[in-house]
Formats: sequence, structure tokens, C-alpha cells
Amino acid sequence: MVNKLQFIYHEFLNIMSQSLDVIFRPKSVAIIGASTRKGTLGREVFDKLLKSDFNGPIYPVNPKALYIHSVKAYPRISAIPDKVELAVIIVRKELVLDIVKECAEFGVRGLVILTAGFKETGEKGAAAEREIVEIIKSYGIRMIGPNCMGVINTDPDIRLDATFAPTTSLPGNIGLVSQSGALGQTILEHAQELNLGVSMFASVGNKADVSGNDLLEYWHHDPSVQVILMYLESFGNPKKFIQLAREVSFKKPIIVVKSGRTSSGARAAMSHTGALAGMDVAFDALFKQGGVIRANTINEMFDIAMGMANLPLPKGNRVAIITNAGGPGIMAADACESNGLEVVELSEVSKSKLKRKLVPDASVNNPVDLLAGAQPDEFQFTLNEVLQDENVDSAIVIFVAPIITNPTEVAQKISQVAQQYDKPVLGCFMGVKGVATGIEELQRQKIPTYPFPESAARTLAAMVSYCKWQQKEPGKVSRFATNEKLAQSIIEQALKQKKEYLNDDEVSNILRAYNIPFVQSKLCKTLEQIFEAAKTIGFPVVLKVSSKDVIHKSEVNGVKLGLQTTDDLNKAYHEMSDSLRNHNISHDTIFYIVQEMLHDGREVIMGIQKVPDFGALIMFGLGGIYVEVLRDVTFRISPLTDIDADEMIKEIKGLPILQGVRGEKSVAFETIEQVLLNLSQLSLDLPEIVEMDINPFMSFPESEKSKAVDARIRIARQE
Amino acid sequence: MVNKLQFIYHEFLNIMSQSLDVIFRPKSVAIIGASTRKGTLGREVFDKLLKSDFNGPIYPVNPKALYIHSVKAYPRISAIPDKVELAVIIVRKELVLDIVKECAEFGVRGLVILTAGFKETGEKGAAAEREIVEIIKSYGIRMIGPNCMGVINTDPDIRLDATFAPTTSLPGNIGLVSQSGALGQTILEHAQELNLGVSMFASVGNKADVSGNDLLEYWHHDPSVQVILMYLESFGNPKKFIQLAREVSFKKPIIVVKSGRTSSGARAAMSHTGALAGMDVAFDALFKQGGVIRANTINEMFDIAMGMANLPLPKGNRVAIITNAGGPGIMAADACESNGLEVVELSEVSKSKLKRKLVPDASVNNPVDLLAGAQPDEFQFTLNEVLQDENVDSAIVIFVAPIITNPTEVAQKISQVAQQYDKPVLGCFMGVKGVATGIEELQRQKIPTYPFPESAARTLAAMVSYCKWQQKEPGKVSRFATNEKLAQSIIEQALKQKKEYLNDDEVSNILRAYNIPFVQSKLCKTLEQIFEAAKTIGFPVVLKVSSKDVIHKSEVNGVKLGLQTTDDLNKAYHEMSDSLRNHNISHDTIFYIVQEMLHDGREVIMGIQKVPDFGALIMFGLGGIYVEVLRDVTFRISPLTDIDADEMIKEIKGLPILQGVRGEKSVAFETIEQVLLNLSQLSLDLPEIVEMDINPFMSFPESEKSKAVDARIRIARQE
Repeated sequence: MVNKLQFIYHEFLNIMSQSLDVIFRPKSVAIIGASTRKGTLGREVFDKLLKSDFNGPIYPVNPKALYIHSVKAYPRISAIPDKVELAVIIVRKELVLDIVKECAEFGVRGLVILTAGFKETGEKGAAAEREIVEIIKSYGIRMIGPNCMGVINTDPDIRLDATFAPTTSLPGNIGLVSQSGALGQTILEHAQELNLGVSMFASVGNKADVSGNDLLEYWHHDPSVQVILMYLESFGNPKKFIQLAREVSFKKPIIVVKSGRTSSGARAAMSHTGALAGMDVAFDALFKQGGVIRANTINEMFDIAMGMANLPLPKGNRVAIITNAGGPGIMAADACESNGLEVVELSEVSKSKLKRKLVPDASVNNPVDLLAGAQPDEFQFTLNEVLQDENVDSAIVIFVAPIITNPTEVAQKISQVAQQYDKPVLGCFMGVKGVATGIEELQRQKIPTYPFPESAARTLAAMVSYCKWQQKEPGKVSRFATNEKLAQSIIEQALKQKKEYLNDDEVSNILRAYNIPFVQSKLCKTLEQIFEAAKTIGFPVVLKVSSKDVIHKSEVNGVKLGLQTTDDLNKAYHEMSDSLRNHNISHDTIFYIVQEMLHDGREVIMGIQKVPDFGALIMFGLGGIYVEVLRDVTFRISPLTDIDADEMIKEIKGLPILQGVRGEKSVAFETIEQVLLNLSQLSLDLPEIVEMDINPFMSFPESEKSKAVDARIRIARQE
Repeated sequence: MVNKLQFIYHEFLNIMSQSLDVIFRPKSVAIIGASTRKGTLGREVFDKLLKSDFNGPIYPVNPKALYIHSVKAYPRISAIPDKVELAVIIVRKELVLDIVKECAEFGVRGLVILTAGFKETGEKGAAAEREIVEIIKSYGIRMIGPNCMGVINTDPDIRLDATFAPTTSLPGNIGLVSQSGALGQTILEHAQELNLGVSMFASVGNKADVSGNDLLEYWHHDPSVQVILMYLESFGNPKKFIQLAREVSFKKPIIVVKSGRTSSGARAAMSHTGALAGMDVAFDALFKQGGVIRANTINEMFDIAMGMANLPLPKGNRVAIITNAGGPGIMAADACESNGLEVVELSEVSKSKLKRKLVPDASVNNPVDLLAGAQPDEFQFTLNEVLQDENVDSAIVIFVAPIITNPTEVAQKISQVAQQYDKPVLGCFMGVKGVATGIEELQRQKIPTYPFPESAARTLAAMVSYCKWQQKEPGKVSRFATNEKLAQSIIEQALKQKKEYLNDDEVSNILRAYNIPFVQSKLCKTLEQIFEAAKTIGFPVVLKVSSKDVIHKSEVNGVKLGLQTTDDLNKAYHEMSDSLRNHNISHDTIFYIVQEMLHDGREVIMGIQKVPDFGALIMFGLGGIYVEVLRDVTFRISPLTDIDADEMIKEIKGLPILQGVRGEKSVAFETIEQVLLNLSQLSLDLPEIVEMDINPFMSFPESEKSKAVDARIRIARQE
């Protein structure tokens, strides 16, 4: 009930809260803490905003100054005679709270707080931050920061640069978020260096109000943003991110650098599934399901951004490489192939045309090697020819400056041709001074260019996979008829008994309640019951111990496989009970399970792992000892669509084992897919399940033979 | 006999041939093809040499000019009145041969031929190149090229720059080889950009005489070269490279970019071991065994070179990270961890000292976060503290320019501290203009600096692994007593019979001749013999067909596993012979193999794969279907040292399976190692074996139980 109320309240706030226009498109701005002293942040931000020629009045606020940089200053915001829409706050942290209150009362609609010293410094700072948030929420104010480096909007009608970055951002179609202020500056510098135009930029700092998700939502509907770049260190609400990203990605690519890859991995639990399902796999799943392109480094993010921001998407993965130097051509081919691109065979028509026109020693295979003497015209002719070729979806043009050819002319010819086709062309002008004028020309013409072929190949590969993502079926989350009630009551019961792990019977009942096929098995107490069970199930069978005092059955000799006859069973029973006696397992707790024995199936693992904030991850991988050693597993965040389940299965390296090698038939993938979808539903219906493995699930070519053989469920009461 | 003569002749030439001093330290140089026309290669090379202030006379040779760039010119080399040691040739390809002859007769000792149009253009060019080589060999002349961009020696006493690169190379301790001329220029430009000093440079072009190996040998003994960088597209003599590299690497790091990674892989045979043992794994083995650092890109090569050329080697993998921005600190920690470095816990002493001195909000855990306000003194104090810490082997210092701190001062303080310790310190100054002066200062002080933390981490990781390589035992190649004669006669016999694959009996005899344990098995013709064999071997047994007409036994129902009794065996025999009859296998060719049945062993694969020029590769990996699907295999070039064999076993991802999971005992690694060494010896003794798999070799904790279960040997007569 409390949750529901909170939810309604939150929705109410959402409606009440302003669009982020109050921050990115304000009609007037006050800089509170603007200073007369050069070199202080308060002065630098004021100067920057003035220099950006902001399209509206700027009011410096400073209790001690009459004017700042020739602009009349006011002692406090309430002294300003006009309405102020956005206030940028750069004052000592002790003063921030009072100033926020004053701003709120004065009718400010947006705040950007650069001042640091809040949540990032510990509990005291966090408390101060909470107070600020309370005020702005109650007034419906939107706020960026605290602990950030400001915001930029390069829209010619706005011209807002309220940051202290030394760079001047070029107008363009990129929306840029940086959680880290320090890195934000570096990011802006690199964008400038690469001639990449930015539409809006925000350094979100502590994300006390406006988060990455809010910006995603805002930019989703903003036509000035066509590509979204995010540098993030944490996710406040990953579930919302996934929904938003899914929608946004169909229209605009989102490229994310998420730091904290490994340390969080190390912090993860050491239990084997726990370790597998550490935080980073959750982020990977998040990005995959959201259609987000994950870049490993800032460098890579910009490489990809240059392609996305300037080029049409390639229709497929077939690339032509044109070069005036053999070595770099080989390197490009290597890089393309290892990024999943196809260095395609050119059509016979193209080859014969090239053969006729190029110098005799030139190679007209792909890579097309024009040789060191190649002139601008040859680049032009060749690029034109390969872009016409129906086998070719994209081209990489490599130019290594020989002393004779003019790189600017080469660049001009490349851009002229590229503009005539709806296929992406990437430049790779290698060298520094020798090709500098060519690189500048390409940048002017919006042809992305890279110093080494590997970056061009990686960018193209990211574009191909984004294009695939855009085209794929959205998939749907279905609901299946299950015995939810039964499963819930089993868990309720177990929680009352303070159990952490469900027992074998409870586990198999829950699986059956969710239509997950489980090997035939019977719980027995006496040898007679065991014989009876084996007769019903049919030989060969497996005999296992079941006792609340036995966690690892094999350690107490508690599993006997492949029992062919009553004699075998009798012998196994006696050996097992002797061993249990020797291990001092109390007779009262001991039950036996007789189970059908499955032969020659291919083992997979499936499971559920709850991760804070993310909900449940669904796991799939190769089973048996291989899951522990080779970690050939993949994850998705629940709920799964049918497409998600299908992709999970196709993603593991061991897929050919399931498809069948050496003449084997493929296993019944539809059964595995259905179990994954059942697990997804189960994870939503039974949030008390914090960890669950089906290991192994034995797969066969016959759907009806495919069954879970063993499973483990850990539960915990949810708040 | 012919081989022996060739060998002696080759040795004779080696003795006769000049040291490469005639090329890199000539007393005088002629530029044949020097031109009066600016912009021609002949003019550019001449100007460059003149500009480099070569320490000796330069003679331009041009039949039509009286002087070039104020220097008296000669119509032909023989017209020069003095001795000429080195001639650089840049004339039309048609003229090269005659000029080479003239040079030879005139007594020139070294040649650098820039002219292209030889082997790289096809058979006609190759023939012309062979003629040139014949001449220079008979005169004992050393030659670089043809089809190259020249040579550089920055030694202040030499000052030789005979290239057409627009760069001026700084003196330094790096030896640089580029097979590609075009890329050579790019490489020189990047070196200059990074302020990396080069001792000698050679663009080796077609390598008709001087090869990468020759330069390795030359630089091995040259104290001016401390780090060797090679960009290579092919290896003329990989076996020699391995020997040389092994020696050189103990003294000087060799960093190689080898292009042609994937295309050659694709060209490899489709047979499963063939595909596994494509060319690129051979190169990987080559580099591992030679202690060579393989860089994936030119970028990476230079990143690593900056560390190697300027820093002491780290004693271990424990790194401290110092930063003035949280985000980049996290990214650096991620990058370090994923490159195998340990982001170590600082000592309590260090932590408490830092705690006392730094601002209260600073984090004294590793990464040490000094926060955005950090001043040069704080960097100095902190770096000093962590370098003193015994837990720390190296440090990465990240600096993101806030508007207030002076990057030059920070750089100065870092260098001052770094120079006092024998531990490597790497800078990561993020941003462009904001940190430019700091980067320049670090470069001046020979502290390598990187724009992103990933490159710093990767460099440090390469340095750590190079240091480990230097320290490891060299290992030795032993010879074991084997029945070589028997094995040779089996192969000789089989070759006479024009067999491509040896039959089961031949295979098992060869394995036994090389002390490779093979399951007990007996070849039988009749059912009586089969019963007899099973009795001797002991149940359970395996029954297999053996016939020259059966290649894939399982396709004709020719393998029956786990036969427990004479009845089972009888039934299996009749089923099998029925099936063979149905498959029209002639009765005369049919034999049966009764084999001991091995249970519960862990399967590995071992084998031999011949690769042209490399000799034999020895393979090791996880066996069964996993070798095909997961490709968890590793290779080394034969002969193996004991250390090689040990490393191979430890290198595969599936190692934990062999070490034992879930309480299993480890398999007997000493047996596997011994088999690998036996295979190594076998590959040398029996070069006719072009491919061999032992798949599976069944490993057990007990050495005496571990045995080969199946093997396949393909042979071909060697030239």
C-alpha cells in the first residue's frame, strides 16, 4: 500500500515537474557566485556564458560587486528586477541551501549547482543534498548537480554555455552526458579536437534530480539531438533506463561508457552463480536489451560517435577497402574481419572496370591497392566504382601520404563521391603532419577520419550492429498459464520455517508449477518404497539422498548413478545408508529420491539471479563443469521477450554443441526457450527467489525428453 | 648432400658479408638518381641527407646535372674520384640492375634501393630482383630494399637520414623496422609526435638481402639500440627469428606488429585441426617462444615503446593509481584489472600518512583520489608516498586539468619524484589544450604519458609480462630414448604404399615407439581372437572396426563402447559385421580391434601440425567435442623445451577442469607434459608426419592410467 502511494506521489511530481527546457532553453540566467576575480570558477562560468553570446539577459549575483565584466551585478537573486528562469549556483557549500530556498521563492524554474561537497563526501553532505531536493521537489524546480560542471546548448537561438570548460563547443547533433565533471571537460575537449558538433551537454554530477534517464527522455523528443553519448559511473534506475533506451534506440543511437567494470565484479559474491552474475554482466544485459552501444573507452565512444553523427547507416556488413599502401590495407582487412565485417569480393564488373583504369600493378581485389603513386582522380574513380557495386555496403578509404600526392585534393575527391551515395564512407588518413590538411578537409565535409584502420573498422562494426538492432523484431513478453498459487504457498511456507534453500521436493514442485519439465522422481523413506519407485519409473535409475542436513550430496556418497537392476539398487541403498551413518546424519532426516536416469543429453544451465535495482537476471549457458570453468553463460534482465530468449541461446560460444557436432541432431531449442520464458515469469511472480539454478537441464533432440535434472532455489523475504 | 653444400656456401657468405655498418655507419654516401627537380624522390632524399648534416661526403649522381643543391654532381658513380661506401639508388626500375653492377665494380659496400617494381609486382620483377641479389652476393655487398623508403641513423657521429620522410627523427634508443615503406613514414611521424627518440630506422621493403632477422642480429650487439620495434607483414625465416628473438629479448624488448592476422586464418584449411593451426597461431607461438611482445596496432606498439624506452621495468604487477578525478580513476582501475595488474591495497603506514596530509574528503584507498582541487605539492607528496610503499611496484598518475591547477607544475613534481625511484611511473594527462604544457613537460622528462588510462594500463601490463619473461628459466630441449628406427621404417613403408593416413596398427606402433602410452588394444580377425583379446585385456572393452576402406568408423556403426561380458561382445560383433556387410565393406579388408575401455578420464587433445617455413607446431587443448567448438587450444613451435610444455598446459582456459573441480583430483600433468615433449621429438625425427592428432588422450590422476585412446597420422614425402 505504501508502495502504491509512493508511486502515485511520484507520478504526480512527474506531471508537476517542468520540462528540462527550463534548464536547456531558459529565457534568462542568473549566475549566483559570479566573481570579479579572474581564475575563480564563479568568474570563468560567467565569462563563458557571456562569451557564448547567450540569447537572453544574464544577471551576475554577488553581494560585494557592483558589476562583473561590465554587466550590472545584484547582491542577491531577489534584488533582480526581472523574472529569472535558470540560476547557476557556484558558491561555498554552506551557502547553497539558503540560496536554493531564495531561488525557489523568487520563482526560478531551473537550477544548475556546480558547488561540490554533498553526497559524494559522505552522510553529512548527503543530508544537505536531501534538503535541497525536498525544496526543489515541492516547488517543481528541475535541478542539475550538485557537484557538476554545468550545461551547454549550442542551438543558435539559445547559445547557452554555463560551464567552466576551456573549450568552445561546436553546434551539432550530439547529446552528451557526463556523470563525472572532470571527465566532462576532457570529453568536450576531445569532441572539439575531432570537430564533432554537440547539440546539448550536461555534466550531471550527483544526479540529485536530473539523471541520465531524464536526459534520455528529454532528448528522445528533441530533434536537435540525433546521437546520444553517455559517460556513466552508476545507474539510479536501471529498469527505467532499459525501457527508455529501448524506445530511444529505435530512433537515435545511444553510446555508453560505463566505468567500474571490474572492481564491482571483484566485489561480487564468490558463490559460483553469484560470481557469474556480478554487476557487470547486469550492465551488459541492460545495454544489449536497450539496444545501447557499449564503448569500452572514451576514445572508442568518440570513434563510433563520429560515424553515427555524420554517416548513413550501412545496410549490411560488407565493406570495401581502398588504400594507397599495402600494409595498412592488410591491417584494415584484419580489423574488419575480426570485428565481424566481411571484406567482400567485388563484382566482376567493378573489378574489370578498375583493372582497365588503374595502373597495371594495382590490386583490384579487396582491399583495392592503388599503390603509392595514386592520384586524387584514382581515389575518386575507385571509390565511385566500389560504392556502385551491389556487393558493397560501406567503404574505408586509407590514405598514407606519399610526398607527391596532395592530401587535401584526395580528401575533396573522397567527400565529393561519398556525398552521392547512401553508403557510409570512413577515412583513415595515416600520419600526422603529412596528412593534416586532408584530415581537416574531411572533417569539414563530415567524413569521419581515423588515424589507424582499427578504429574505422570498429566504428563500422558498431554501425552495422546498431542497424541490425533497429531492424529486428521487437519481441513480446507473454504470460503463460502456471500454478502460481501453489508456488507462492510453497515459498510462503518455507519462509515461515526460516529456510534459506528449498528442499528437493519443494524445488521440483515449483518447477512443475511453472511447466518446467523435471525428471521423474519419487521421495522414499524405506527400501521397499525405493524398489516400488524404481519399478514405476523404470530402470536405469538414480538414487540420491535428501536430507535437510546434507547440503552437498556427493560429499556424503549420496548420489548413485546408472542403477540397472534391483540388485544394483539394493547395493547402492546399503552403501549410501552406511555412508550417511558414518557421517552422523540423523536417520530421521534421511529420505531417498529415486530418479529417472537420463543418458547422453547435452547439459545446459538456466537460472535466476536477483541483482539490486535491476530485478532478476535470467541466465543461460553450457552446463556441467563447463559453466564453472569456461563461463560460457549469458544474461538478460527479466522480463524476457521471446526474442531475448532466442538471442540468449544463440549467443553462447558452445552453441554448436547444442546444434550438434559430428552428425548429432540439434537439441530441441524450443524447449530451452520456453523454460527461459517460464523462468522469466517465475522471477516476476516470485520475487522471494533470489537465486535459482537448474543445473543441469538435460537437452535432447526430442522436446519431451528434455528435462531438468537438478535444481537449487534460494529464497529471502522481500521488503 | 645438396642441402649440406648449400649450408656451407651460406655460412661462407655470412662470413664474407659485411656487417650492416656499411649501411648504417657509412663513411661516404652516393645518391644515385639525385635530382635537381624539387618534389621528386631523388631530390627529397638528397635534401634530407644534406639537412641531416651527414658526417661524411655526399655525392649526388645524375647524368644531366652539374650540381644539386650546391653540391657537385657526377654523371655516374664511377666518375666519383673518392671511395664510396654506401649508394642509395632512386632511379627508374629499368636502370637499377646496371647501376647495381656499376656500384659493385666500383667497390660500394652497401646499397639502399628505393626504386619499386620488383618482386612485389610479379614474376618479371622477381626475376630482376634475383639478378640483383646474385650480383651483390658475389661481391659481398649488403643491400636494403628494393621497394623501400630508406634508412636512418641518428647517432651524433653519423647523422644519416636517407629517407624521403617529411619528419626529423629525434635521437634515442629505439631501433625501428618497417616492412611497409608507406607505413614507415607514418611510424616515423608518430614517433616524432610522441617525442620518442629513434636510434636507427630501416624500411626493409622486399627484404631481398637485409631482413628483419639481420637487423635483430645487428641491433642485438649495438648498444645504441635498447628497444626494438618491428612492423612486419611476413617472415622469411621464422625458425631463425625464434632463435634470435629468444636471445635478444633477454637483453632488449622486441615489440612487433604483424599484419595479416585474419585473412591468412581464413585461407587455412577447413579440416578442424588445420583450421585451428592456421598461420596466425603459428605467429602467436613464434612470438611467445621468442619473448616478443605482440602489439595489435601501431598505436599499441608505440604506447608500449614509450614505457620500455624510458622506464625501469616493474618488479611485479602491483600498481598504485593517483588521480584528481574519480571517474578516470575508476576507468584506470578497470583497465589495470582487466590487463592482469593488481590495484593493490596500500600499506597502513602509507594510508595513515596520506590521511594526515591530504584534504579530508580525499580517498586514500587505491585509486588515491586527490579531488579536483589537488595542487602540485599534493601530487608530489602522494606519489612519493606510494612509491615508497613496499606493496607497490608501479604507479599511474592521472591528471584532469581543472581550471585552477597548473599542469606544467604538476608534471614537474611528478618527474622529480619519479626519478628518485626504480619503479615505473606512467602519466595519464587527460584532455587536449588544458593539459598540453603538462604533457610536453612529461615528455621532456621522459615520463610516458597517455591520453586515456587504458593505454597506460596496457603498457604497464606489457612491461610486467616482459619482466616475467626475462626472469623465467630458459628451459631445455631434452632427447629421450625412443625407437626411432621402427617409426621411420613404418612411415617409409606407408609412403611406399602411397598411403596418406596410417592405419590403426601403424599409428599405435608409432606412439609406442615414442613412449606415448596407448590403450591396450589387439587387432583380431575372427570372433575367437576377439574373445581371446577381451580376456587378456579384461572387461569392459571397446570393439572397433579397422579397415582401409573405413575412414569414419562411427558412420558404419563400427565402434561399440562399454562391452561388459562375452555376450555383449558377441552381440556387438554380429551387429557390426552385419552393418559392414550392408555398407559393402569387403570382408578381406575387415579387421577388428579390441581395446581396453577407459572410464571417467578427462579428455585432452595433443597433436602435430606442420606449417610451411615454421616446421612443426605442437598442439595442446581440451579434448572431445570442446576442441572443435570452443577452440581451447594452444600451440608452440617444435622443438619444445620443458618450460614450453609446462606453459602450454597452464595456458588453456579449461585448465581448472584438469586440475579438478568439485573435489576431483588433478590429472597427472607430468604425463601430459612428457607426451608433448615426445611429440616434439617425434616431429623432428619424422618430418614426414604433416598432421597428427591424439584425440582424445584420456588423463587421470594416476600417471599409469593416462593413455591415448585414439590417434590419426597423416604423412607426406618431404622434399
